[in-house]
Amino acid sequence: MFSFKLIKQSSKSKARVGRLITPNGIIDTPAFIFCATKADVKGVTIDQVRNAGTQIILSNAYHLMLQPGSSIIKKSGGLGKFTGWNGPMLTDSGGFQIFSLGHGGVASEIKGIARCNGFKNKKTMLKISEEGALFRSYIDGKKILITPEISMKIQQDLGADLIVSFDECTPFHVDKKYTKESMERSKRWGLRSLNYINETGDGTQKILAVIQGGVYKDLREESADFANNHNFFGFAIGGSLGKTEQEMRDIVEMTNSMLDKSRSVHLLGIGGIEDIFYGVMYGIDTFDCVSPTRIARHGMAIVKKKFCNGKNYTDLSNSIYKEDCSPISEDCNCYTCQSFSRSYINHLFKGKESLGGSLISIHNIYTMNRLMTDIRNGIINDDGNTNNAMNSVYKDWCV
Amino acid sequence: MFSFKLIKQSSKSKARVGRLITPNGIIDTPAFIFCATKADVKGVTIDQVRNAGTQIILSNAYHLMLQPGSSIIKKSGGLGKFTGWNGPMLTDSGGFQIFSLGHGGVASEIKGIARCNGFKNKKTMLKISEEGALFRSYIDGKKILITPEISMKIQQDLGADLIVSFDECTPFHVDKKYTKESMERSKRWGLRSLNYINETGDGTQKILAVIQGGVYKDLREESADFANNHNFFGFAIGGSLGKTEQEMRDIVEMTNSMLDKSRSVHLLGIGGIEDIFYGVMYGIDTFDCVSPTRIARHGMAIVKKKFCNGKNYTDLSNSIYKEDCSPISEDCNCYTCQSFSRSYINHLFKGKESLGGSLISIHNIYTMNRLMTDIRNGIINDDGNTNNAMNSVYKDWCV
Repeated sequence: MFSFKLIKQSSKSKARVGRLITPNGIIDTPAFIFCATKADVKGVTIDQVRNAGTQIILSNAYHLMLQPGSSIIKKSGGLGKFTGWNGPMLTDSGGFQIFSLGHGGVASEIKGIARCNGFKNKKTMLKISEEGALFRSYIDGKKILITPEISMKIQQDLGADLIVSFDECTPFHVDKKYTKESMERSKRWGLRSLNYINETGDGTQKILAVIQGGVYKDLREESADFANNHNFFGFAIGGSLGKTEQEMRDIVEMTNSMLDKSRSVHLLGIGGIEDIFYGVMYGIDTFDCVSPTRIARHGMAIVKKKFCNGKNYTDLSNSIYKEDCSPISEDCNCYTCQSFSRSYINHLFKGKESLGGSLISIHNIYTMNRLMTDIRNGIINDDGNTNNAMNSVYKDWCV
Repeated sequence: MFSFKLIKQSSKSKARVGRLITPNGIIDTPAFIFCATKADVKGVTIDQVRNAGTQIILSNAYHLMLQPGSSIIKKSGGLGKFTGWNGPMLTDSGGFQIFSLGHGGVASEIKGIARCNGFKNKKTMLKISEEGALFRSYIDGKKILITPEISMKIQQDLGADLIVSFDECTPFHVDKKYTKESMERSKRWGLRSLNYINETGDGTQKILAVIQGGVYKDLREESADFANNHNFFGFAIGGSLGKTEQEMRDIVEMTNSMLDKSRSVHLLGIGGIEDIFYGVMYGIDTFDCVSPTRIARHGMAIVKKKFCNGKNYTDLSNSIYKEDCSPISEDCNCYTCQSFSRSYINHLFKGKESLGGSLISIHNIYTMNRLMTDIRNGIINDDGNTNNAMNSVYKDWCV
């Protein structure tokens, strides 16, 4: 029942169309996973998320273990019932947040939270040992130990279909020696995560191995070999992806080429439109990023370039839209574009009404799902010869 | 076409069931009018407002003339199209906001706005003359003159079905002499408002006279006589309603008894559950208040008393609901109660996720509409004798 099936492998690149079958539903890949960090997609109801064509959402073990606590979500029947989503879900292990916050913050998401709670620039990571990671709660300052086993237990309580092995998210500024030690500890933590699930799980949850190793080919290879050689359901590419866009793409391409082709590959935290195209061409099956709803709250709507003077984003808070009675995007069938004008949305932003961000969030979720549908159709229809379908999709979307 | 029809007059009180027929739809009365102050009901989409059983919404000429400007809404096809509501609407004249803000702020709503823009405690009212009111914009500090004719022109641009004559909202702290002068000026402004609409209107908008006169019977009488003797479509009771709940009820009862029974009566800005019951018994047909969505954003849900230990409001931000898997109200069919637990909503408030306020807003809108339906059914079914239906409704809802 729980499986990843290959539907079509492109003849021109590593791009592929697949199908992830989970106990709570099917995900056609390549797919975008929307972030419901604290068990809600910010500013929209779960039905608005669903009606915008969403296949799968993810929540963060780190946030939910601190508030409301994973036992409360378990008592509610798991995240599916708690959130009203009742579809395929993924949870991360908490590792990314613990370490990115702990090292002083690389994730702006975490920086934002820290700021709100008076922990700005305060390192909350206390100690990394073989056992696990000791850190301070950003909510009440309490010391909390998280081990691979504890992370798995939390993710079992949360009850998502896809869960992620506990790893150290190696900081981007460390040297190769530390990156290697960290990756090797993450391998041992990955094995403990896998063993815990194999021993205690009921088969309704499958685990992804996180591939670490930073920008170093030999370390990525060692991490990939470990994951290939154990019965993880799939892979998630994490850690430092370099300093430039080009380096990021090179590392994604290199890392993915090392992985067993019969399993699904997730790229953690990447959501730019062009980055998604490159990821797909290198064989990535799923992506996640907070950006579609975060940029929406600042007025930014995602559009095909021909609807925005060759750009991918249009800023609805800009006064140029004050009297513009057309929808955000003329070719869009989302609730927002079918119901409201740029002028109305611009007015909501000028008036600081939160509904403006919610309406653009609905549009951006719909648009990301539409982008992924276009990409899947592009791969399916592209014959590698006369019908250059994937190229057309790229030209439509990328600037 | 545009009419107010009496369906049933209670034999026990002045309570009545009626039907307001407007070009954009029918309103069964007694009805609650939800505030879309800046052309949106805060935190919810217009479809969520509609699906919660709403018959009519109101917007504020004052806010909309300043942002985005009434000409832009006119260009969009009026408020119905701009907001996507496309149903019955009411706009107020701007008088209440100009004067309540101008006199240093009695409306907490306006105080809130002033605070956000650095105008806290700053009197923005510059000069009241026979011509109209000169005030400063809370947005950019510009001097703006509003006259009865300008208010009507703005309300024509906005295009609501029911509009309100321009009046001075007499402050609560002034003496009888000022209250009388102010009421008499409001009569003259009311006549200018009516004349403007009679001369320039196309019949798709009807005007309500505002009844002023503060706490003084003779002044209320003079104001009511004026309104009765001119062809206003209906009435709106405004101005100071005294200092206590009892005084407020007495003034509403007294004022309403002076008004022509064939026309509809709106009570401006009152929305407490028990106040609505008293208003209905004194013959009020429509009510408006920002409270259902405002209190929602602070975690407060409206419930029948038997679902909340004899109270009308339950605070979902309270940790007692942390592990409570039941809905806000067990007898409620709203989207929120059908989909989410108290535990989930409590979590959203603890996590400062705005969705919590949106979900309670949906519940509160649905609940206010349900209360009004119960009241209408109570009046219809009450035979004044053995079937004490209205009493049962009161006992269900009031603490």
